[in-house]
Amino acid sequence: MPSPRTARDPSRTNVAIIGMGTVGAGVARLLIDHGDRTARHAGKTIWLSKAVVRDLNKPRGIDLPAGILTDSIDEVIDDPEIDVIVQLIGGLSPAREVMLRAMEAGKDIVTANKALLAEHGGELFTRAQQLGRSIAFEAAVAGGVPIVSNISQCLSANQVLSMEGILNGTSNFIVSQMEEKHAGYEPTVKLAQELGYAEADPAMDVDGTDAAQKLAILSHLAFGATVDWRDIPRDGIDRLDPVDLQYAAQLGYRIKLLASARLIDGELELSVAPTLVRKGTPMAEVRDAYNAIRVVGDAVGPVFYHGLGAGQMPTASAVVADLIDTAVGRTQLTFQTLEYFAEGRPARTVQRDVGKLRGRYYLRLHVSNHPGTLATIAGVLAEHEMSIASVIQHEERRGASEATGSSGSEAFVPLVIMTHEASEGAASEATQRIAALPSVEGRAVRMPVRE
Amino acid sequence: MPSPRTARDPSRTNVAIIGMGTVGAGVARLLIDHGDRTARHAGKTIWLSKAVVRDLNKPRGIDLPAGILTDSIDEVIDDPEIDVIVQLIGGLSPAREVMLRAMEAGKDIVTANKALLAEHGGELFTRAQQLGRSIAFEAAVAGGVPIVSNISQCLSANQVLSMEGILNGTSNFIVSQMEEKHAGYEPTVKLAQELGYAEADPAMDVDGTDAAQKLAILSHLAFGATVDWRDIPRDGIDRLDPVDLQYAAQLGYRIKLLASARLIDGELELSVAPTLVRKGTPMAEVRDAYNAIRVVGDAVGPVFYHGLGAGQMPTASAVVADLIDTAVGRTQLTFQTLEYFAEGRPARTVQRDVGKLRGRYYLRLHVSNHPGTLATIAGVLAEHEMSIASVIQHEERRGASEATGSSGSEAFVPLVIMTHEASEGAASEATQRIAALPSVEGRAVRMPVRE
Ligand SMILES: NC(=O)c1ccc[n+]([C@@H]2O[C@H](COP(=O)([O-])OP(=O)(O)OC[C@H]3O[C@@H](n4cnc5c(N)ncnc54)[C@H](OP(=O)(O)O)[C@@H]3O)[C@@H](O)[C@H]2O)c1
Ligand SMILES: NC(=O)c1ccc[n+]([C@@H]2O[C@H](COP(=O)([O-])OP(=O)(O)OC[C@H]3O[C@@H](n4cnc5c(N)ncnc54)[C@H](OP(=O)(O)O)[C@@H]3O)[C@@H](O)[C@H]2O)c1
Repeated sequence: MPSPRTARDPSRTNVAIIGMGTVGAGVARLLIDHGDRTARHAGKTIWLSKAVVRDLNKPRGIDLPAGILTDSIDEVIDDPEIDVIVQLIGGLSPAREVMLRAMEAGKDIVTANKALLAEHGGELFTRAQQLGRSIAFEAAVAGGVPIVSNISQCLSANQVLSMEGILNGTSNFIVSQMEEKHAGYEPTVKLAQELGYAEADPAMDVDGTDAAQKLAILSHLAFGATVDWRDIPRDGIDRLDPVDLQYAAQLGYRIKLLASARLIDGELELSVAPTLVRKGTPMAEVRDAYNAIRVVGDAVGPVFYHGLGAGQMPTASAVVADLIDTAVGRTQLTFQTLEYFAEGRPARTVQRDVGKLRGRYYLRLHVSNHPGTLATIAGVLAEHEMSIASVIQHEERRGASEATGSSGSEAFVPLVIMTHEASEGAASEATQRIAALPSVEGRAVRMPVRE
Repeated sequence: MPSPRTARDPSRTNVAIIGMGTVGAGVARLLIDHGDRTARHAGKTIWLSKAVVRDLNKPRGIDLPAGILTDSIDEVIDDPEIDVIVQLIGGLSPAREVMLRAMEAGKDIVTANKALLAEHGGELFTRAQQLGRSIAFEAAVAGGVPIVSNISQCLSANQVLSMEGILNGTSNFIVSQMEEKHAGYEPTVKLAQELGYAEADPAMDVDGTDAAQKLAILSHLAFGATVDWRDIPRDGIDRLDPVDLQYAAQLGYRIKLLASARLIDGELELSVAPTLVRKGTPMAEVRDAYNAIRVVGDAVGPVFYHGLGAGQMPTASAVVADLIDTAVGRTQLTFQTLEYFAEGRPARTVQRDVGKLRGRYYLRLHVSNHPGTLATIAGVLAEHEMSIASVIQHEERRGASEATGSSGSEAFVPLVIMTHEASEGAASEATQRIAALPSVEGRAVRMPVRE
C-alpha cells in the first residue's frame, strides 16, 4: 500500500509529540529552545506542530506556544501537514494502535517505548516496511547512549561477536549504593525512588525484565536474531544479598546487573544476571544510574560506551537526534536497507546447550563448621572438573548479616569460592549437588564472573 | 560544476582503494571476505574494482582477485565505472591532488588521512560541496572508535560543551608502560616500535602533533570552529619524567596525554598536554594503545567512548562503515546538511584570555633543602590566590632519578605540590616566579589535573 501522503514542504519537517510526560517535555524543550541548532543539523526547520496529552490542565514545566497542546490523538493523526509522530506514551496500548494508525496516515515514527518494541516490534516494523515508513528508536535502549545507531550503522562493517552491558540505570544505582554505602536493599530502593531513578513500582527494573527487553532489541540489531525477551534467562538484583557485594569486593570485583549476548558456534547465548566484574575495568567502574555497553566486533575489537541511560534530557537528546535523522532522510535509508525486526527473517536459535558455555563462577554457601566440609565440597567441584581459584572462609561469628534462619544447635559459617573456568552445565549441576549436601544450609548463591 | 558521472548501477557500488598498506589491505580483506555482510548493510553489493600501489611486486598479505592491482592512479580516476575512491596513501602529496581529481571525476571519497584533512580540509570540503561530492573520514580520528559519526550525527541534538580524549595510542601505550612497569622513556619507545605501535619516526605521535591534528578535526565537527592545529597549545610526552608518573600515582592519579576542547563563555579553549587524571575514572583506566573520548553535551550529559584507535582491522572497520554509509547514501545527506570544514564559515576564536581558564595544577620543583623554602613557595602561590591541596616532600636522597645536574655542595630535593582550583594565568605566573627563586633549581614541571 503506497503512502497516502503527497509532497512535503522540503524546507520544514512538522512534528507532533504524543505523550508530554518526562521525555516528551524534554523533546519539546529542545525543539522550541534550540530550533536554530536542529535546523542547522537537519538542513531544514524541525517544527513542533502539536503535542498530545490526556490532561490539558496538568502543568508541563515548559511554555508551549498557543495552539500546540491538544488531547486528541485523532487530530494529529488526521492532520496531513504532520510528517513525523514522536510516540512517547508508555505501555502497549494505545501506543501500538497509535503507531499503526500514524504510519497508515503516512507519518514516520520516532519512539522511546522499549516495552512496545520488545513486545510488538515484529508487527510494527513489518507494517512500516509495507507502508514505506520508518521507525527510529535510539532512545528506547540506554537513553542518551547512542547504541542503536552505533550497532546498526557505525559498526556495520563488523560481525558482532559479543555485547554486554549495564542497561538498567535503576539497578545500577541500587547496587552501586549498596556496595559503596554498605546499605541494605530496601532502603536503597526507597532512596532511588526519592531521587526519581526508580518508578513507584520498580519491579520491571530490578527483576531484570527491562534489561532483557533492551537486550532483545539490541540482539535484533547486532545479530539479526528474532528473540522473545521472555526466552532470555534472567535474574534481577532483587534477591541480591549485600554480603555478596562485600565478598566480591574482597576478591577484587564489583557486582553489576549485566545483560549479555554472545555468539558461540553460530548460536546466540543471552542472559541477564548479577555478575562479578573485575575492579578497574571500565565496566566495573560504571556508577550511579549510568549505563554502559561493550560491543566486540570481529574487525574493530572491543568498543565501550558509557553515559546516562535515562532521565529527561539525555533521553530527549536521543529522540531529537532521531528526529534530525528522519528529517534529513537518513533514518529512511537505514530502515530500508536494514531488516531490523522484520518478521520472517531467519531466527537464530538461542543457545540451549549449556555445555558449550564456559566461564568462571562465584559460589557462596552456608556450611557447617565441621572439619571435612570444605574437602567434601571441593570433591564435588573436582568431579565436575571445576577447580578452585580462591576461597574465603571466616571463623564462626554469631549473628551474621544474613538471615538464613540457622537451625539452632549447629554452627554454620559462610564459605565463598571463586572457580577457574568451567562449563555452565557443570557449574549448574555441581551447585545443585553441593546445595543438597547435609553440611550445606539454605540456598547456594552462584553468579558468573567476568574479567 | 555538476558531476560528470551519469546514472550508476543502483545494485552495486564500485570501489577503488588507492594505497594498499596497513589500512588498505584491511579494507580489501573486509570487502573480499565479507561481501555478504557489506551487501546486507548497504542494500547493494560493494565491489572492490581496483587497488592502487606503487610497487606491484610487494607482498600485500592478502589474495587479491586477478586484475585488481594496478600502479596507475590515473587508471582508476579515469574509470567511469568507479563510484568511490578510498584514499589511503599517507602524507599530503599526492594525496591532496588525488582527492581533488577523483572528486572532479565524480567520485565520492572515503579516507583515513588525518594529516591531510588537518592541513587541507577547508579546501577539500569546499571543493566537494561545489562538486556535489562527499568525503567520509571516520577512520581519520581515533581509528575504530566511531567518534566522527557520533559527534556529527548521534549527538546532533546537543551543543557540545567540552570534549577530551586520549587520541594518540602510541603515547598512551608509552605512558601506561612507563607507569606500570616503571620503565624509562627511551626503552619504552623502542618497545612500542617493536610491537608496531610507533612509527620508525614517532616524533608526531609523542610531541602532541597527531593529537592536535585530530582535536582540530573534532573541533570542526563539534563546535563549527575553523581551527589551525598549529594554534593549539601542545605539549607531548617526549619530555615526561618518569618520576612524575610515580608522584601522580602516589597522589591517586595517572598521567595521560589529554587533548581537550572546552567552550568557555562562547570561546573555545583547546590544548594537548600530559594531564593528571584521577584513578578509577574511566579516562584514567585507558591502557595500552587504546583511545578514549569523553564528550559532554548540554542535553545528553557526558558520553564516554573507548576502543582501539589504530591498527589494521579497527581502522578498516571505520573505513568500511563509511563505505557502507556512502553506498546507502547517508554520507551524502550528512555532508550536504553539515558544513564541516567549509571555508568562510564563522570561525570561533580560540581562547586566549587565560584568566578565564580555571583548573587544578600539579607542580614539581627541585628545591634546596633549607628551612623556609616551602614557606617561600607557598607565599608566592598565595599571592597568586593559589591554595595548596597536598604536598609531597621527601627527605634528601643522593642520586635521585632525575638528572638535573645538581650543582655540588647544596642539597636539592624534589617538592611536589597539588593546588586547589586556580586560574591558568595565575598558575603560569606563579610557576615562573617560583622557578626563578634562588632556592629552586632547574625547570619547574607544571601539569593540569582533571577529576
Ligand atoms: N523517563 C525516562 O527516562 C525514559 C528513558 C528511556 C525511555 N523512556 C520511555 O519513554 C516513554 C515515555 O516515558 P516518560 O517517562 O516520558 O513517561 P511519562 O512521564 O509517564 O509520560 C507519559 C505521557 O503520555 C501521556 N499519555 C499516556 N496515555 C495517553 C493517551 N492515551 N493519550 C494521550 N496521552 C497519553 C501522558 O499524558 P498525561 O501527562 O496527561 O497523563 C504523559 O504525558 C516510555 O515508553 C518510557 O519507557 C523513558
Ligand atoms: N595504520 C593505522 O593504524 C592508521 C590508523 C588511522 C589512520 N591511518 C591513516 O591511514 C593512511 C594509510 O595508513 P597506512 O598505515 O595504511 O599506511 P602505509 O602502510 O604506509 O601504506 C601506504 C600505502 O600507500 C601507497 N602509496 C604511497 N604513495 C603512493 C603513490 N604515490 N601512489 C600509489 N600508492 C602510493 C603505498 O604503496 P606501496 O605499498 O607500494 O609503497 C602503500 O600501499 C594514512 O593517512 C594514515 O595516517 C592509519
